[in-house]
Amino acid sequence: MEVPYGYTGKILRVNLSDKTISVEEPEDMFYRKYWGGRGLIAYYLLNELPKGADPLGPENILIFAAGPLTGAPVAGSGRNSVGAKSPLTGGYGDAEAGGYFGAELKRAGFDAIIIKGASEKPVYLWVHDGEAEIRDAAHLWGKTTAEAEEIIKNELGDKLVRVSQCGPAGENLVRFSCVVNDLTHFAGRTGMGAVMGSKKLRAVAVRGKGSVALSDAGKVRELARWMVENVPRLAFGLQDTGTAGGTVNLSTAGGLPTRNFREGSFEGAEKISGQAMKETILVDRETCFACPIRCKRVVKAEQPFKIDPRYGGPEYETVAALGSSLGVDSLLHVAKGNEMCAAFGLDTISTGVTIAFAVECFSEGVLGPEDVGGLDLRFGNPDAALTLIEMIAKRQGIGDLLAEGTKRAAEKIGGRAPELAMHVRGQEIPMHEPRLKYALGIGYALSPTGADHCHNIHDTLYEKRENRAMQELYGLGVLDPLPSDDLSPEKIHMFWTVTNLRTFYNVAVMCQFVPWSVIQLEELARAVTGWNVTAAEMLLAGERANTLARIFNLREGLKSEEEALPKRFFQPFSSGPLKGRAARPEDWAKAKLQAYRMAGWDERGVPSRECLGRLGIGWAAEMLPSSSK
Amino acid sequence: MEVPYGYTGKILRVNLSDKTISVEEPEDMFYRKYWGGRGLIAYYLLNELPKGADPLGPENILIFAAGPLTGAPVAGSGRNSVGAKSPLTGGYGDAEAGGYFGAELKRAGFDAIIIKGASEKPVYLWVHDGEAEIRDAAHLWGKTTAEAEEIIKNELGDKLVRVSQCGPAGENLVRFSCVVNDLTHFAGRTGMGAVMGSKKLRAVAVRGKGSVALSDAGKVRELARWMVENVPRLAFGLQDTGTAGGTVNLSTAGGLPTRNFREGSFEGAEKISGQAMKETILVDRETCFACPIRCKRVVKAEQPFKIDPRYGGPEYETVAALGSSLGVDSLLHVAKGNEMCAAFGLDTISTGVTIAFAVECFSEGVLGPEDVGGLDLRFGNPDAALTLIEMIAKRQGIGDLLAEGTKRAAEKIGGRAPELAMHVRGQEIPMHEPRLKYALGIGYALSPTGADHCHNIHDTLYEKRENRAMQELYGLGVLDPLPSDDLSPEKIHMFWTVTNLRTFYNVAVMCQFVPWSVIQLEELARAVTGWNVTAAEMLLAGERANTLARIFNLREGLKSEEEALPKRFFQPFSSGPLKGRAARPEDWAKAKLQAYRMAGWDERGVPSRECLGRLGIGWAAEMLPSSSK
Repeated sequence: MEVPYGYTGKILRVNLSDKTISVEEPEDMFYRKYWGGRGLIAYYLLNELPKGADPLGPENILIFAAGPLTGAPVAGSGRNSVGAKSPLTGGYGDAEAGGYFGAELKRAGFDAIIIKGASEKPVYLWVHDGEAEIRDAAHLWGKTTAEAEEIIKNELGDKLVRVSQCGPAGENLVRFSCVVNDLTHFAGRTGMGAVMGSKKLRAVAVRGKGSVALSDAGKVRELARWMVENVPRLAFGLQDTGTAGGTVNLSTAGGLPTRNFREGSFEGAEKISGQAMKETILVDRETCFACPIRCKRVVKAEQPFKIDPRYGGPEYETVAALGSSLGVDSLLHVAKGNEMCAAFGLDTISTGVTIAFAVECFSEGVLGPEDVGGLDLRFGNPDAALTLIEMIAKRQGIGDLLAEGTKRAAEKIGGRAPELAMHVRGQEIPMHEPRLKYALGIGYALSPTGADHCHNIHDTLYEKRENRAMQELYGLGVLDPLPSDDLSPEKIHMFWTVTNLRTFYNVAVMCQFVPWSVIQLEELARAVTGWNVTAAEMLLAGERANTLARIFNLREGLKSEEEALPKRFFQPFSSGPLKGRAARPEDWAKAKLQAYRMAGWDERGVPSRECLGRLGIGWAAEMLPSSSK
Repeated sequence: MEVPYGYTGKILRVNLSDKTISVEEPEDMFYRKYWGGRGLIAYYLLNELPKGADPLGPENILIFAAGPLTGAPVAGSGRNSVGAKSPLTGGYGDAEAGGYFGAELKRAGFDAIIIKGASEKPVYLWVHDGEAEIRDAAHLWGKTTAEAEEIIKNELGDKLVRVSQCGPAGENLVRFSCVVNDLTHFAGRTGMGAVMGSKKLRAVAVRGKGSVALSDAGKVRELARWMVENVPRLAFGLQDTGTAGGTVNLSTAGGLPTRNFREGSFEGAEKISGQAMKETILVDRETCFACPIRCKRVVKAEQPFKIDPRYGGPEYETVAALGSSLGVDSLLHVAKGNEMCAAFGLDTISTGVTIAFAVECFSEGVLGPEDVGGLDLRFGNPDAALTLIEMIAKRQGIGDLLAEGTKRAAEKIGGRAPELAMHVRGQEIPMHEPRLKYALGIGYALSPTGADHCHNIHDTLYEKRENRAMQELYGLGVLDPLPSDDLSPEKIHMFWTVTNLRTFYNVAVMCQFVPWSVIQLEELARAVTGWNVTAAEMLLAGERANTLARIFNLREGLKSEEEALPKRFFQPFSSGPLKGRAARPEDWAKAKLQAYRMAGWDERGVPSRECLGRLGIGWAAEMLPSSSK
């Protein structure tokens, strides 16, 4: 059980204002405590970003972070996070993307890139085998992501370069613009594309020929082989119909966000489902670094419009956000919208929810025809949706207002508009319905990045115990399965455990779709790093990262009353499978307070000194509101 | 990762009042949630023992409990717990013993024996291969443990019968009488011998020829082999000089309880040490079921008095309690006292501390010569100590008062006596000094069984990271080592983690001295049970058991102010290596409150509903004081 090697990772620092580049090498202990992803990003933001900094100003710090497991030759390890203060929420921001960029960054010698300052002129960063160079990007500005990527690869003379970039939407500071890896993988949420745009950093190109050190390469290979052999048994559905394979089931259960969350079932669900995609426009399946699952879609069309297969195909979130959420049952239009968001660099969730907001405003008379430039903004009008995507990316007409996100747009519109804006703390609600999954709603409210589905409980999974990792964490005898409309302290414990485990995936920067068990995850973490970690430490690492992100938000002024759901989610559905169902506001408020207490936070949601001690981050106490010290 | 078999365990129920015997078979989930030991005992006491029951009355429930890992052929698995409402503390009581009894009980087909009622005449219980019989024990009453064991084995005609019994001290309801396994292993604390005595149950004899089911026998064998091969490297000291091997070092550090905790260094430490034992009276080393360590001592002497090697030899706790704590530097007398305690069935810790209390009362004039029957009760008078052991066991003279334990005796004596009584909630302080180990003092106060060293942090270990299991739980990068006089929230977290892990050892009924790593413990638990447990679940299982025991105490009226240390521990040493050192009462009180909060308890120490939810024991809410529901 001796630690066979100390983990070593380098961090590249780039200042775009004065064009300086340097490398630092934190000690092994730093990585074991903060890992990568959210842990590393929150650590640096708290320690180096001045309080109150403008997210779109040069002070903001943009961090591309891999993690200690990134680049190990096993399924799920190719990813990276992108983090900064969020222009969408004004608080902690990060998003993860799959693909190959994270693994390539590690092979280039770096665990993370910390980017400060802002360039006067468009630039891109070229990172290769331990070195980095800031290069002119004037010729990339305004180009689609596919155009820009092709130019970069050509001028670097290497087709294997991995490119992570914002698109024109990021250049235009659309607050929900995303970061695009390899055209088909998206760090979608919290507006990281706009942070790139604000720094005039169009792209980061990476190439590395090194290898990632493994403490026990034999064990890593054994785990990789196991997953290859078991993917047909454990992840056939993901491979067959992608993440959108469950769309119809979700609609049948009443939890498919439909027409801006006014309904939970969509009559056109089958038409936009993963099954329909497979039978019509699907031309290939793609994957990420070292992953045998192949859950990524590649779609293509020529009529009635071209859909470029270089941009892959829509995930479930996109199918719902640009489909049912807009009342659109045309898969072709959903796929076209997906391609446009990829080309412009827009987060499909926020884009869809923002358009749904505009549509509902229009249909409720909150916005008039003159406000929307004469567009026929009905639910179920797919062409208007596509038009709005382009207008948002280019900040044209009503698109300029919508590019600010639902929260800011609703405040400007006024009247009833804020009621129709489906967001938490400025980030649009993802495609999971809190009236189906009650604890998920708590998770939306308490997420440090605003409404988030990636580090959240999906109650229905734990009703049925479908998740291998969770099955092991709870065990058959430890916690009984709880119904999805339960908000008991037992469910809140389950919520926190899921959140902490999912945030461990975040800090390890591993894909949550790969059906590793928790036990395998422990084994993998040990085999790669040489650290004797257990699930207990892994859960604490996840909790630590989330708590640091929360502390960042508190430092920036987060108030407990902002940790709330839109009122709509407390109004029972008037029809459909979940007719009459919604959490009572008083039950929900009680559960939220219980979640605070269980985490060791006071009634304002401020982590106690005990909580910091438990997580080994006493140093962050001084970042908290003074009364809590 | 499928569960290859459901764990099945049977529980034997015996009612000594009406002589009925039955067997029940809880489901797999019950065992995974509560395991054995404290988890199982606290569950049954809370659910079946009426509130306010007299610990020495027939209502009390006595439970012999093994655990799911007991009897697996690996080091550390031979143990069992004995639990009941404690006659010493009036609260939750249990104690663990090593040896073979637990493994034999499992081979006889049972995970536990639940004994209710009381017999009118002395009896013993004979359990063998799924059956049980209540037998007459009139001929055993008053006999030493060795005599009784020999008679039982002879009349059952089987030398391999394992006998767990109280001694004459238990018969005489000495409140700190113990339960003796195989003459040399003791469930020492909380007065379980007196509960046996009150039920007129002199012994439980067990013999089983079955085998313990293993989910993955190959893995269990692999782990067993690993330990055999690594014992010379990892546990040589324990084998060489036993648990008393550290006596001199502890004295040098200033943490060897000396003269009733008035001092922390003992000038005679070398003479009573494990090294001295090895060089003089040690004649053999013994061990427990399947354990290659052989930490148990066997000592023998003929002059100046006989010491019977059938009773083994003194452990560290005994060396200190009957040695330094009494100012006695004669190893022969310590060993004789150990033999006498084993023969009478007395807990050596409480016996030593109670005698030290009497000695200090006498030397301070709180007790006069007439009170003590003319005994020369000086610190450093070994003969008087041996005399008092017998007087306590037989409740003769001052022994009758001292047999009530320091708390009750001090209350009866009055005056300054309570200040000189070194106990928490009635249980005498073990041989570890809270002025050396500050967080250990918190552990003494918060232990559900009164002052306890087995489920407690030993700060100095974590200063140096000597403990393999802890090293893994904290990890190199996760928590920094903290000095032994630290009481920060970080230390309190460490305290709770250690407590929960050690209590997992309790509920798994595994020996803490076997140097398993946490990772091996996970592997072992999985291999034996087939459950996909991780360290996270194991820590929760420990916490769950401790919390149930706490809830039992709260139901019986526990007040927060009883969770305190004797004032002496806040008075700095006036000399020695730790001169001037003691926690400040206000710092200590703050740390205690932080420990409450970190556990999810209110300021009265009552677990919150969130805490119960986290542990999956919402059913216990109704046992709590009403205001906390």
